Amino acid sequence: MPLTANDPSKKTWLETSTNTDFPIQNIPFGVFLTRDDIITIGTRIGDFAIDLGALHQLGYFNGIDLTDDLFMQDSLNDFIADGRKTWRLVRNRVSDIFLEGNSNLRDNQEHRNIVLFTMDEIEMQLPVDVGDYTDFYASKEHATNVGSLFRDPENALLPNWLHIPIGYHGRSSSIIPSGTPVRRPIGQSKPGDDGVPGFGPSKLVDFELEMAFITTDANHLGQSVSIDEAEDYIFGLVLFNDWSARDIQAWEYVPLGPFLGKSFASTISPWIVTLDALEPFRTNGPLQDPEPLPYLHHGDNKNFDIKLQVGIQPENEEETVVANSNFKYMYWSMAQQLTHHTVNGCNVRSGDMMGSGTISGPTKDSYGSMLELSWKGQNPITLKDGTLRKFINDNDTVIMRAYSEKDGLRIGFGNCVGKVLPANK
Amino acid sequence: MPLTANDPSKKTWLETSTNTDFPIQNIPFGVFLTRDDIITIGTRIGDFAIDLGALHQLGYFNGIDLTDDLFMQDSLNDFIADGRKTWRLVRNRVSDIFLEGNSNLRDNQEHRNIVLFTMDEIEMQLPVDVGDYTDFYASKEHATNVGSLFRDPENALLPNWLHIPIGYHGRSSSIIPSGTPVRRPIGQSKPGDDGVPGFGPSKLVDFELEMAFITTDANHLGQSVSIDEAEDYIFGLVLFNDWSARDIQAWEYVPLGPFLGKSFASTISPWIVTLDALEPFRTNGPLQDPEPLPYLHHGDNKNFDIKLQVGIQPENEEETVVANSNFKYMYWSMAQQLTHHTVNGCNVRSGDMMGSGTISGPTKDSYGSMLELSWKGQNPITLKDGTLRKFINDNDTVIMRAYSEKDGLRIGFGNCVGKVLPANK
Repeated sequence: MPLTANDPSKKTWLETSTNTDFPIQNIPFGVFLTRDDIITIGTRIGDFAIDLGALHQLGYFNGIDLTDDLFMQDSLNDFIADGRKTWRLVRNRVSDIFLEGNSNLRDNQEHRNIVLFTMDEIEMQLPVDVGDYTDFYASKEHATNVGSLFRDPENALLPNWLHIPIGYHGRSSSIIPSGTPVRRPIGQSKPGDDGVPGFGPSKLVDFELEMAFITTDANHLGQSVSIDEAEDYIFGLVLFNDWSARDIQAWEYVPLGPFLGKSFASTISPWIVTLDALEPFRTNGPLQDPEPLPYLHHGDNKNFDIKLQVGIQPENEEETVVANSNFKYMYWSMAQQLTHHTVNGCNVRSGDMMGSGTISGPTKDSYGSMLELSWKGQNPITLKDGTLRKFINDNDTVIMRAYSEKDGLRIGFGNCVGKVLPANK
Repeated sequence: MPLTANDPSKKTWLETSTNTDFPIQNIPFGVFLTRDDIITIGTRIGDFAIDLGALHQLGYFNGIDLTDDLFMQDSLNDFIADGRKTWRLVRNRVSDIFLEGNSNLRDNQEHRNIVLFTMDEIEMQLPVDVGDYTDFYASKEHATNVGSLFRDPENALLPNWLHIPIGYHGRSSSIIPSGTPVRRPIGQSKPGDDGVPGFGPSKLVDFELEMAFITTDANHLGQSVSIDEAEDYIFGLVLFNDWSARDIQAWEYVPLGPFLGKSFASTISPWIVTLDALEPFRTNGPLQDPEPLPYLHHGDNKNFDIKLQVGIQPENEEETVVANSNFKYMYWSMAQQLTHHTVNGCNVRSGDMMGSGTISGPTKDSYGSMLELSWKGQNPITLKDGTLRKFINDNDTVIMRAYSEKDGLRIGFGNCVGKVLPANK
């Protein structure tokens, strides 16, 4: 199944700006609520949202074996479960429909009125019903920084880290789409001199800059996925802010890991960009030394060059960019993460989400959390309005961006945005 | 809404044995596949499975506000989402239908043929679609034993343990109903002298004796559940074997907690016994010292006296009971667990499952895992066939039982069973 939708020479008859995250070579998948309050599966080209349910009803997918209501659902889970061949047929067909020179839809105003929306006419929803969400810890720089800050700079990486793509289970219920406000969490923190733990709104709310991939059904319980086939089960990626309350986390996380310090909110960008669309941006990851065990061996180009950026915007003020990183810094690839996840026979299902862990780069301005950027508050960051930030204040909006760019082709994710509201009284 | 179904003097016109786990005072809820391969929601009295979908269609729930297909589903999630009032109306009505002296169904052979099944005619399924599964660590004896074995007997409990119902997120996809075989997991273990981690089938497969509760929709994201209302959101309980691979777990769990050492399988008993049915068995938990923070304060009788037992049955051999424990030993109550889980605003949904953590009692024969019973293998257990066990061998079946008993009334859970199959080649 050729990836004809990827052809960089293709142009669309839709009006799009040249630096859009969503050229005709992207064709991501998402779920939105239309102006008529109907929920549907769609895609996006430029600033147009496209109703795939309507396109299907109007016959534009004739010849592709799809169930009638496949796109008239509130999640992509069933579509993703149909597997890679179907994803490619649909993506290539959408590319054809909007290709410059194809007049079928272009010249049918009645159909256009049904199918096309401007972005301000719709409301993006969660793209998948996440059955299980796993978060990895796959950036060596991040793990080293955290180990230095909380344990021992001389032995910052724990002994298992270079052998295992360390991961843990996260909370699915509190995954929210970009734009949903985040309530500052309340909880316990380390005891003071009286021996009584602190209790109240977290004082150390942080972002974590991550990417996450969405899987299709990969294996039955008791079976595993080999490293060579792992990428076949990755549908696509989203940009991901794994909100963290550092004071709650620090007190609770021994010995079973982070819990309420994370589960108050996890924001994802609403469009899933397919692994297919990111194909031109493959690159090598960092050298892995020591060599991983054989079940984690793979060939070249399993990382992806995706530029990442984080900004903080205080209320009614300008945004300040506080970090620039890249997804290519990940020490453990997505293929290694998925393979490791199933080596014990754990089953992975359509709609499962696996986060990368905080993506920190080698330089101080490429760290993916305030914990690292302000070095645990020791070096506050000055924003454009002159205020300082060690962590995230009430009414700050955190804005993340992600895009790949090469030879004039840009494939992006749109923004992943969340505003921190004051804690409940 | 009175709990008339709990009246201990009630008898049923169905033939039941006197020591059944499922007298007419129980009325648990589950999902099963019928002889006609139809999936339905049902209950159980004695050794009869009862099709609630059929009862509803035949009009036996007239007067109760239920959607037509509420019981013709493959999970209890929607029924549970209807809330406590509906659960009680249905449970009381089922009690009436099968009450000695009520001839409506008893004397209608045509209806009986549609509604009633013997247990060997059906196949039990998972009762709920578990959105999120959380496992707590709420037995002080277990936490102390594990702390002694792996850290320091003098400081076995970590500083946070007496203040926080410690918990972590588990894997939902690998939760399976009793009877499903469990494949011995493969994975990494601690490096040998060459510095290379071990890799292969786990040598230390263990059970963990737990109970788990199933919730209804409790709160919206950003809100919390107060300790006084927490139990309103608990639908019922299951018996739970949280299978663990100790060697995989020991190597992977720092710093983010257990992952593949747990996610290969988690077995639950298929009938959810309602909190209402367990009402007569309330009791006090252990004294909590220091006093928990105010948000975790509650009155008396938030624990439940449920007798627990674990047996190991080698292939073609007799079962040996290896542990007798009790759910009442839990230091942190279910109400405290649920309240703590939501204090940061994390939303809890219908069908979520929260495990107790291993339930160990004060005596050596009441420990809830082989890790503790054999004291990390130092004191192997002799089975009836003369063989020794430090952990679980291939083709061993682990059988758990749970029931409450008082004044001649017995409310039980049935068995929670799993056989360990050899690892994949």
